[in-house]
Amino acid sequence: MSNEILILHGDIVHAPSFANLRCIEGGYLVAVDGKVEGVYETLPERFEDLYVTECGSKIITQSFCDMHLHAPQYPLMGLGLDMQLLDWLNNYTYPEEARFADLDYAKSVYEAFTRDLINSGTTRAAVYSSIHTEATLALAKCMEAKRVTGFVGKVNMDRNCPAELCENTEESLRATEEFIERAKNFKLVKPMITPRFAPACTPELLNGLGRLAEKYDVPVQTHLSENIQEILLVHELFPDSAGYWHVYERAGLMRPGSLMAHCIYSDDTERRVMSDNGVWAVHCPCSNMDLCSGIMPLRRFIYDGVNVVLGSDISGGAAIFMPRIMEATVRISKMNWLATAQTEPILSIAEAFYLATSAGAKRMGCGEGFAPGDPLHCIVADDARMCVAGEGRTLRERFERMLHRMQPADITAVWSEGVRVK
Amino acid sequence: MSNEILILHGDIVHAPSFANLRCIEGGYLVAVDGKVEGVYETLPERFEDLYVTECGSKIITQSFCDMHLHAPQYPLMGLGLDMQLLDWLNNYTYPEEARFADLDYAKSVYEAFTRDLINSGTTRAAVYSSIHTEATLALAKCMEAKRVTGFVGKVNMDRNCPAELCENTEESLRATEEFIERAKNFKLVKPMITPRFAPACTPELLNGLGRLAEKYDVPVQTHLSENIQEILLVHELFPDSAGYWHVYERAGLMRPGSLMAHCIYSDDTERRVMSDNGVWAVHCPCSNMDLCSGIMPLRRFIYDGVNVVLGSDISGGAAIFMPRIMEATVRISKMNWLATAQTEPILSIAEAFYLATSAGAKRMGCGEGFAPGDPLHCIVADDARMCVAGEGRTLRERFERMLHRMQPADITAVWSEGVRVK
Repeated sequence: MSNEILILHGDIVHAPSFANLRCIEGGYLVAVDGKVEGVYETLPERFEDLYVTECGSKIITQSFCDMHLHAPQYPLMGLGLDMQLLDWLNNYTYPEEARFADLDYAKSVYEAFTRDLINSGTTRAAVYSSIHTEATLALAKCMEAKRVTGFVGKVNMDRNCPAELCENTEESLRATEEFIERAKNFKLVKPMITPRFAPACTPELLNGLGRLAEKYDVPVQTHLSENIQEILLVHELFPDSAGYWHVYERAGLMRPGSLMAHCIYSDDTERRVMSDNGVWAVHCPCSNMDLCSGIMPLRRFIYDGVNVVLGSDISGGAAIFMPRIMEATVRISKMNWLATAQTEPILSIAEAFYLATSAGAKRMGCGEGFAPGDPLHCIVADDARMCVAGEGRTLRERFERMLHRMQPADITAVWSEGVRVK
Repeated sequence: MSNEILILHGDIVHAPSFANLRCIEGGYLVAVDGKVEGVYETLPERFEDLYVTECGSKIITQSFCDMHLHAPQYPLMGLGLDMQLLDWLNNYTYPEEARFADLDYAKSVYEAFTRDLINSGTTRAAVYSSIHTEATLALAKCMEAKRVTGFVGKVNMDRNCPAELCENTEESLRATEEFIERAKNFKLVKPMITPRFAPACTPELLNGLGRLAEKYDVPVQTHLSENIQEILLVHELFPDSAGYWHVYERAGLMRPGSLMAHCIYSDDTERRVMSDNGVWAVHCPCSNMDLCSGIMPLRRFIYDGVNVVLGSDISGGAAIFMPRIMEATVRISKMNWLATAQTEPILSIAEAFYLATSAGAKRMGCGEGFAPGDPLHCIVADDARMCVAGEGRTLRERFERMLHRMQPADITAVWSEGVRVK
């Protein structure tokens, strides 16, 4: 039986390590049966007689990973951004999430949401649903159908939230177990345990979720140290905890591969606990600026051995298109550089690209850049409208410019898990 | 002779004052002979028999004003943003600007530049050209033809710049006078005196430009207090000046209606001099973040009676689309709120909209919002793709969401100086 071989020819850029952008003008990306075979400057002889998909001077690069976003907040993007976290939750987020009890509404929103992700070149994601089990399964189904690969979690909350979203603790745990069981048949989408955040969960709920995480060996995603008011509330609600991290850690929720969003006010201990437990930090710069949350000192996480990925955090952030998140990552690092008297180095756009692609792929168990053996996740993007005749820019310059200026419409093709989806 | 009457029917939003967004669902905007006649909830009887241009549920609002941008840097948008001001000037800006000695190259870039402005809904602008007189006239011609209304300046610099851009002082003054004379015939575009910035100008050049500004009663646009290194250089080059402002003030360049870009590190005295002289500050948040320049304390200018407008500052900023600048205005004000221990209030997106529209119109001698008698500057934008069935949002909410999320393609029609241009 012959293999299916895809050969893309064009200007290739990928990020095989954090500080390294590899650029190959007129290179070849070869995939066999949907898996990366290799990236070549010259096409190896063994492929010479095969059909080549010509991308001309378009840029072939990795697709994006969005490791923190709330699917039911998709209709809220751009709304309420003159508020801070807790007000915004009560005025916008919670009333909207309550609508997801209506399965038809959920299906229509999730259909548009997943279509927008793929259209934007995001093929991997870690997504929050609402508290509703059926709607969460509908979201997983939409993602599977459109080949958005990654994680979905049914949200848990049993206090400090409006009545229509406040779960009974036992029922919340039962529904979570049901979701995990019913999600077994998905291939591309895996369940995550998803307590909303400590202030909305009783210790009983957190402990129960920790037991489920262990029983099913499922990672956890939640929010950590995002906002000063939120942190004060955590200290009030959990007076015997040694820190925000401790609330999750003693409940068994600081599991390897878990994703903690924001981590703006994490101290040395919190970072050490994350590093020791193989917990990942998700940096969401648009949201952190838009909700006035603060600046996450990203480099310190990296120095301390904590893995970092990026998230759009819609609708705390108003943009789902990951190049906007990369741009914001660089900008907020520049604000941090100014705020720290120029002691913490700025992130480059190339580093932000790594965080939005290879770092997320690594979390999914894959290699960095176009690593041989990995399922193909890739986009083809056209930067012709940004180019000027005779300007003599290097591919690296063109690529960086494109990251700053591109729009979803510039993406002409997308592959996810080896299959073309746009 | 009958008048030409335009009646637009749709959801109207405009900003008649800084803290006030006026929203009229299903309203009427009437223009007679290209000038705003009025905005109405119900169409006045005298217009009842006339043709109405139906915009349905599209949003009719003011077009944008970009009060600081460099036309010859248009091809550089998104390039070199990992550098700071002085390095970036030497590595990217100056080599590119030198190309504008070639008039054909200049024409092709300026054609694309002005098309992009109109396409993005920007109908008023204060634009820097390069040192080249012919190219500057070509830019003015392009703007006039596409109806981009506002100001153009031939840049002056006679020291601290590469040889191919370094002017002889006398020749620079002569060319500026020639440009002012030859620009007399333009209707929509007026000349501005445009010294690059203090470090690139000798006192002789600045004094000569001050004399020209007075002779022809022309306002001035330049850069002020943008970057710490730049300010140190100014103190070194002008050791007898009392401050950055003083370098311009004693040369007669702090004239009413002049535009000073950035003003990040302006002190109380500098703000007072600006206020006393009727000089305007141009806030360029994308550029200020991208070039790590710092945070302009915008509210303090307003408290101190300095008029403020917004600028994209391409290519210090990578975006020419003013809603991106409004978003950045709000974000950087949030970073300022955090940096000032929450003492300086955040700007709302509605306030940023005022700065990007009415404030610029005011600088052009017009009223705020859709003021009767003003030439019509307006856009129609479609937010349908952002709306969700049955969401029940107010027009104000839809408008704010649109400012955060819109792209140039969402703008379906543009009027500039009373004429439809898109």
